[in-house]
Amino acid sequence: MHPGDDSPIGMVGFDADDTLWRSQDYFEDAQRRFEAILGQYIDVDGMAARLYAVEKHNIAFFGYGVKGMVLSMIEAAVELTDGRVSSRDLSRIVEMGKELLRHPVELLPGITEAVAAIAAELPLVLITKGDLFHQEAKVRDSGLARFFPRIEIVSEKDEATYARLFREFDIDPRRFVMIGNSLRSDIVPVLALGGWGVHMPYHLTWAHERDAAMGDDTRRFRSVDCPAQLVQAVADIRAGTLAG
Amino acid sequence: MHPGDDSPIGMVGFDADDTLWRSQDYFEDAQRRFEAILGQYIDVDGMAARLYAVEKHNIAFFGYGVKGMVLSMIEAAVELTDGRVSSRDLSRIVEMGKELLRHPVELLPGITEAVAAIAAELPLVLITKGDLFHQEAKVRDSGLARFFPRIEIVSEKDEATYARLFREFDIDPRRFVMIGNSLRSDIVPVLALGGWGVHMPYHLTWAHERDAAMGDDTRRFRSVDCPAQLVQAVADIRAGTLAG
Repeated sequence: MHPGDDSPIGMVGFDADDTLWRSQDYFEDAQRRFEAILGQYIDVDGMAARLYAVEKHNIAFFGYGVKGMVLSMIEAAVELTDGRVSSRDLSRIVEMGKELLRHPVELLPGITEAVAAIAAELPLVLITKGDLFHQEAKVRDSGLARFFPRIEIVSEKDEATYARLFREFDIDPRRFVMIGNSLRSDIVPVLALGGWGVHMPYHLTWAHERDAAMGDDTRRFRSVDCPAQLVQAVADIRAGTLAG
Repeated sequence: MHPGDDSPIGMVGFDADDTLWRSQDYFEDAQRRFEAILGQYIDVDGMAARLYAVEKHNIAFFGYGVKGMVLSMIEAAVELTDGRVSSRDLSRIVEMGKELLRHPVELLPGITEAVAAIAAELPLVLITKGDLFHQEAKVRDSGLARFFPRIEIVSEKDEATYARLFREFDIDPRRFVMIGNSLRSDIVPVLALGGWGVHMPYHLTWAHERDAAMGDDTRRFRSVDCPAQLVQAVADIRAGTLAG
């Protein structure tokens, strides 16, 4: 074994939303229902962009998650309709948020098998951002908690957060692989700290997560199409580091 | 040293809201503003109880914190006014929530000195429930983060949560003292697990936190009036355990 980049992998991190289970689908469905409600008052053209502008501004107040989305939708609905939206329709938006918070967890096909296979080889950690209460409920309902000795729910997945977690895990980032659907939140910050990334794109990506710039050094980067390919991707990374 | 109840104290936990800094004041102020807004439409008699009923029901959906409170207020406002509340007024409630989320942290008098003095003797941990994003912001703004090597933001402060944390801290509950303003969330579950509790009541208590039953065994329980008395209370507990 060699020090540095060539040291073998000691831990694998998984993102949760749109990596273990479906999530963005429900947000986009909620957005379509928002547009249908507001369509009674105003033209829907450009409505999505204006809602996103409100959501993006409000991240500094609300953080990520369903509750913040609903509050942004209410603010946007009143603004965009110039106060004409009815309070009953605003109430419907709150109700929609409650449905979303109680939606059953739908695991991605093949993910349980992939997580189990990787857990048999290496210690896992779940690293997800968003609302503590909602994420805990989903972890509990997913049946996957047993594979994750550590579950970290954080408010932002940036370099500072990953650096703090690596200190808490007492692991050298060069021995850490992160698996997730978001380049911005799962891959770019981990690569920047010297870790490895396996990108598994989801069929939908929130605008906010598309806002990422990959560096040129993609040596520690892999991309897969589906959960079935995760085991091989991690095995390839391990083989490469062991051979180094 | 003796095993069991007589082992010396090894860690001190602090609650945050209404223990380190003011919090309930702002919630009650928000409630008064809610009543003033709704007072334009309906009689305020019994309004607080009806809002609390909606909030309590919604804890299962929203958890604790400002965002959940605002969503419950919107739901209650539409219900109680039978849809007559204007969307502009609902927008004002959202705005009120944003102000609350950005309110500067106001430390309780003497708390910094008390925390610093106890931190000089024993490792501390901050254990707070509520919204991850908001609690992190308050910890950051408080200037107290440097005293807490561990900060745990949890969705509920019950026996199961404390038991999990004690395992993670690798500490016997009999060697743990929890300091906080809520019997329900800070004292009762810790005593039940065999730990020690120092209750420091705040001048205001949310109805939900008043819903607690203390057992008869108050041997491991102390009560203080203000932060200046915390150092002595912890010293007394330590002296007692060392003498045991």
